[in-house]
Amino acid sequence: MSANTFGNNFRITTFGESHGKAIGVIIDGCPSGVDFDIAYIQSELDRRRPGSTDIGTKRNEKDKVEVLSGVFEERTEGTPIALVIFNNDQKSHDYSTIKDVFRPGHADYTYFRKYGIRDYRGGGRSSGRETASRVAAGAVAKLVLKDYGISVHAGIRSVKDIDIKGDFHPPFKAPLYTISNEHDDEILTLIEETKKKKDSLGGVVECHITGVPAGLGEPVFDKAEALIAHAVMSIGAVKGIEFGLGFASTKLYGSENNDEISRKGFLSNNAGGILGGITNGEEIIFRAAFKPTPSIAQKQHTIDINGMEKEIEIIGRHDPLILVRALPVVEAMSALVVLDLLLENNKYGR
Amino acid sequence: MSANTFGNNFRITTFGESHGKAIGVIIDGCPSGVDFDIAYIQSELDRRRPGSTDIGTKRNEKDKVEVLSGVFEERTEGTPIALVIFNNDQKSHDYSTIKDVFRPGHADYTYFRKYGIRDYRGGGRSSGRETASRVAAGAVAKLVLKDYGISVHAGIRSVKDIDIKGDFHPPFKAPLYTISNEHDDEILTLIEETKKKKDSLGGVVECHITGVPAGLGEPVFDKAEALIAHAVMSIGAVKGIEFGLGFASTKLYGSENNDEISRKGFLSNNAGGILGGITNGEEIIFRAAFKPTPSIAQKQHTIDINGMEKEIEIIGRHDPLILVRALPVVEAMSALVVLDLLLENNKYGR
Amino acid sequence: MSANTFGNNFRITTFGESHGKAIGVIIDGCPSGVDFDIAYIQSELDRRRPGSTDIGTKRNEKDKVEVLSGVFEERTEGTPIALVIFNNDQKSHDYSTIKDVFRPGHADYTYFRKYGIRDYRGGGRSSGRETASRVAAGAVAKLVLKDYGISVHAGIRSVKDIDIKGDFHPPFKAPLYTISNEHDDEILTLIEETKKKKDSLGGVVECHITGVPAGLGEPVFDKAEALIAHAVMSIGAVKGIEFGLGFASTKLYGSENNDEISRKGFLSNNAGGILGGITNGEEIIFRAAFKPTPSIAQKQHTIDINGMEKEIEIIGRHDPLILVRALPVVEAMSALVVLDLLLENNKYGR
Amino acid sequence: MSANTFGNNFRITTFGESHGKAIGVIIDGCPSGVDFDIAYIQSELDRRRPGSTDIGTKRNEKDKVEVLSGVFEERTEGTPIALVIFNNDQKSHDYSTIKDVFRPGHADYTYFRKYGIRDYRGGGRSSGRETASRVAAGAVAKLVLKDYGISVHAGIRSVKDIDIKGDFHPPFKAPLYTISNEHDDEILTLIEETKKKKDSLGGVVECHITGVPAGLGEPVFDKAEALIAHAVMSIGAVKGIEFGLGFASTKLYGSENNDEISRKGFLSNNAGGILGGITNGEEIIFRAAFKPTPSIAQKQHTIDINGMEKEIEIIGRHDPLILVRALPVVEAMSALVVLDLLLENNKYGR
Repeated sequence: MSANTFGNNFRITTFGESHGKAIGVIIDGCPSGVDFDIAYIQSELDRRRPGSTDIGTKRNEKDKVEVLSGVFEERTEGTPIALVIFNNDQKSHDYSTIKDVFRPGHADYTYFRKYGIRDYRGGGRSSGRETASRVAAGAVAKLVLKDYGISVHAGIRSVKDIDIKGDFHPPFKAPLYTISNEHDDEILTLIEETKKKKDSLGGVVECHITGVPAGLGEPVFDKAEALIAHAVMSIGAVKGIEFGLGFASTKLYGSENNDEISRKGFLSNNAGGILGGITNGEEIIFRAAFKPTPSIAQKQHTIDINGMEKEIEIIGRHDPLILVRALPVVEAMSALVVLDLLLENNKYGR
Repeated sequence: MSANTFGNNFRITTFGESHGKAIGVIIDGCPSGVDFDIAYIQSELDRRRPGSTDIGTKRNEKDKVEVLSGVFEERTEGTPIALVIFNNDQKSHDYSTIKDVFRPGHADYTYFRKYGIRDYRGGGRSSGRETASRVAAGAVAKLVLKDYGISVHAGIRSVKDIDIKGDFHPPFKAPLYTISNEHDDEILTLIEETKKKKDSLGGVVECHITGVPAGLGEPVFDKAEALIAHAVMSIGAVKGIEFGLGFASTKLYGSENNDEISRKGFLSNNAGGILGGITNGEEIIFRAAFKPTPSIAQKQHTIDINGMEKEIEIIGRHDPLILVRALPVVEAMSALVVLDLLLENNKYGR
Repeated sequence: MSANTFGNNFRITTFGESHGKAIGVIIDGCPSGVDFDIAYIQSELDRRRPGSTDIGTKRNEKDKVEVLSGVFEERTEGTPIALVIFNNDQKSHDYSTIKDVFRPGHADYTYFRKYGIRDYRGGGRSSGRETASRVAAGAVAKLVLKDYGISVHAGIRSVKDIDIKGDFHPPFKAPLYTISNEHDDEILTLIEETKKKKDSLGGVVECHITGVPAGLGEPVFDKAEALIAHAVMSIGAVKGIEFGLGFASTKLYGSENNDEISRKGFLSNNAGGILGGITNGEEIIFRAAFKPTPSIAQKQHTIDINGMEKEIEIIGRHDPLILVRALPVVEAMSALVVLDLLLENNKYGR
Repeated sequence: MSANTFGNNFRITTFGESHGKAIGVIIDGCPSGVDFDIAYIQSELDRRRPGSTDIGTKRNEKDKVEVLSGVFEERTEGTPIALVIFNNDQKSHDYSTIKDVFRPGHADYTYFRKYGIRDYRGGGRSSGRETASRVAAGAVAKLVLKDYGISVHAGIRSVKDIDIKGDFHPPFKAPLYTISNEHDDEILTLIEETKKKKDSLGGVVECHITGVPAGLGEPVFDKAEALIAHAVMSIGAVKGIEFGLGFASTKLYGSENNDEISRKGFLSNNAGGILGGITNGEEIIFRAAFKPTPSIAQKQHTIDINGMEKEIEIIGRHDPLILVRALPVVEAMSALVVLDLLLENNKYGR
């Protein structure tokens, strides 16, 4: 099935190339009568926007969202909500140097092999710009979830080998939105040095979803972890995901890992709020691994569309660390899944 | 959408409770004219079957697969293939002691909260027994993939804190199917001690998919990693997944992590065979984290369906280490996704 | 997408060839806690069963339904319900005479062109026998709908050129289940004469769905008429469908066709209970056109799988009039759609 | 599932209210490398546009289509194609008189019952204007089908009780696009008289799809007739559909209705090109019944949103006969289904 649509009940369809005329999203299945807070949606987009932080790229599209349908007198109609962001910065020539060359770590090679087309304008659909549509849709999902008392927050748990300890208490502070700000100076220094080296960094994002009722998740193939993993792994640069203790749980005995239950609830949350693929009423907790940004100005070996070997240096506007801008994207994809499962569960009046 | 169906093109629907009359799967979308090697399908089921290894549970259902439809004169007809396994071992009384009590780490609590029903017969759909249907369907997928030169192999990469080093060279050896057998004695001893402690173990499974052409994966939401993550995270006990270097890639610079390209192909495979969600022709590599088996005979605190606090000891037939039997399940889910993406790609004559 | 699955919320997957080992259906998305009246389900199957009426074929499979999963202590569990009917009458040799020859009016030719396989055993999936699975699933849907006060009834509105006038007051009387029995003698005589001529008959089935609340149907592509048309047109031999006045409405002025509204409700029901694709609270009314049964013993011109011209006489057990046995099938497909739309609507707590 | 998306392989998602900011469609699954003839797409929209014929409404939005994504250097990229039509005529006040009143024969009442919202701006999503998105998407489908030698044509077979005899030889002539122009004067006179009476007319549209290969259609639930019926019945005002001889076939003997087969092909096409739900290589033929336009200026009884009885006269711009503008919509929905089935079939390299 063509795969620019996500979700079964609250279902989004995104479109748009990074340097095309516009990008956007159609939201289908949004309940009617929801107060449509466009300012909030724009504020979420601003979190993702390049140049939103002084560590981001210098590119600045403004990313002004426009509503084409689905909203009447500031409330949702239950009809498809069309949100569009026109691209007012289409400097394709920035990319012309790499016109026929495949950037290592990018989708240039695989898209060319799949579609036989080389859209050299900044990666087309594979560009991170596509995620703006997800953030816009996720913001609408968050507006609906708020009425259910459900909230989603993501923060940075690690940057390269700098692990950030401490409990998860959002909201987190600018400019890095790390879970505790202890290491911010260290990280900002690392970012500066990395820039100088014409290199880039990765890290781990942690996300918590609070207020989720027990009972969400559809056995056996649409378990809550499975759908969230699908959603989050569909974000470019994510190479791994784990729930609760995740990989660390493999090093424990069952007696250490099991969450015992008391009249007051679970005595621990090693499971990350999900048992047998169904939410148990505890906080949903997961972490996503972001590989270092593939766009680097260092010389790299590659080939062109004719198979000739080349050397490439990716000049231009690139984040050495994508994590900060990735936070609203991770939150958006999580919100979409939780709302989708909530509506699914409603079918049975649960 | 109800979630006992998986896949868009090669699409399976599973059914059956662990202690019901039968379990099984309907495969829809299988090409016609495929040689239907029932012996191979049975052999795959035997790999998953309890009692298949001396470290497994003592339960033994035989798991004899029967074909009800879709095959004529030993070839697939292009019509739905119905595979059924009748349960010839339904000792519900084994479970009667835990009739109204929620087993920690199990789905008992969440299923009860979701459906308002307590099927105390060994977990019903949430039982690992459900995965036999997946293995049967996956075996059919592997038969089709074989004609495309694609093969899928999984092995054990770690058990508790015993990491298994070494390259991945299947097939692996009984009884543990570890990637290198160096640590087998150590692991078998650990298993014995864990049994005595009435405890259980987890670990990490690694899976490689070879022979995959470039171009599989559907941007932007059905990226190859996203679909495989969805498939594998839908297996009970899996709490994390990572592709290529995965979480380790977050600790590298972009210049270290990027796979450079030469005329002969990629110079490394840190990406695990997938770029921008599309296969690049290299081996697909991922690892899945299995939490320790939740069923343990140690005393644990829990509550019953009336919310009264109880202590529980899960007596009976349980694997201290599920990993060995999980290998064919991981392979099956992977094969289903790759075949699904292959058929998807065929639509455009690629 | 493979097409042996129907429905989004109450979703069925059918399998089985007419002369294979068994046919059956998996029902996914059935609410939990529904009283599972197996006797009722069997009684619905008996209505469709060949030999159920003295005008039917002489073949008699008994069609005994077995429940393999999804039901515990006589209530649905919310897990997939597997219903299987084993074929205890597989006289393939009845069909061997037509082994390589395409029967006019049948799917033999098109299946061969599509799948490259000739399952000569009575049509395989294209046989009317496949509809038994639909009837079984529809019976479960009716059990759920009953709790909502919704019922579905079909009767015969015409046979060849014998139109049956009169209001629609189910239940209708054996053996023909015509809307009024006035013409039964005439029709039974026609059937006898047609048998003698080695020929067959068609006719029109009318179906009414009562108790449907206003608001069911999903704009814009899953309008209630669109889904019911999809469901009913998927029954073999159906070549047309119309709602309310249907084709007759094209001969009226808008002022004659519009249903005016009063405080007490609509003043007429020319629309057949659906406006803009959404139910309006009136009775849903539609009619389906069944072509005459293609299996006739008269000599017909055709070709074989090698393209050689042949003459064929289809000897054996065939209904000259399929309509009576088609009634439960039409009801089943209608019930599936209405329940599906009902669950869909529930998502929004409507 | 939310229902503003149609199709599995060539999949469209439409959005937009009749008097909102814009309407449009996202096309997902279009092959890459297709020459994107925007002039042709605009010409198809012009066929549907109000005021396109002197018998249409006076409203004139121009309906200028804009491409926001999916096309690069005039060829499709294989990414989602976003087509938008901005509404430059939003005279809501035209409708203010009927603000709280339900128009008989319209979806006003049912939408209000379903969504609890009254978008009085000309019917919102239930307006015929929504079909412009379908025509735009259908035009793209036709561009792809042209490369396969498949074409779709619709003409008017009857207006009220004026039946138009004669063979189907497109293209048909303006202004009525009847199958034969014999009765055009008679029909134009009828339209004039009907306007004077403040009334409206319905009729029957016939559609032929030529060049379709044998083998399209997916048993058992997505038979070609079932999908086309779904597609066409989802067009507002359509109340019935029939294939080949359709309802007339019910009045024949099987020996009269069966299409016999010779070495040269079928000796007749009573089946309308489909057997057992699969295309047989003959022309696909169907007819759709359009009820008379519900918008009439005559006084009608109705109620308002508070249940109070009212009289209504629908003043404004309305077609007494919608059929001419409906032709491209019927063609579009047919083209979408045939292309979807074609891509589906490709999966198996057929």
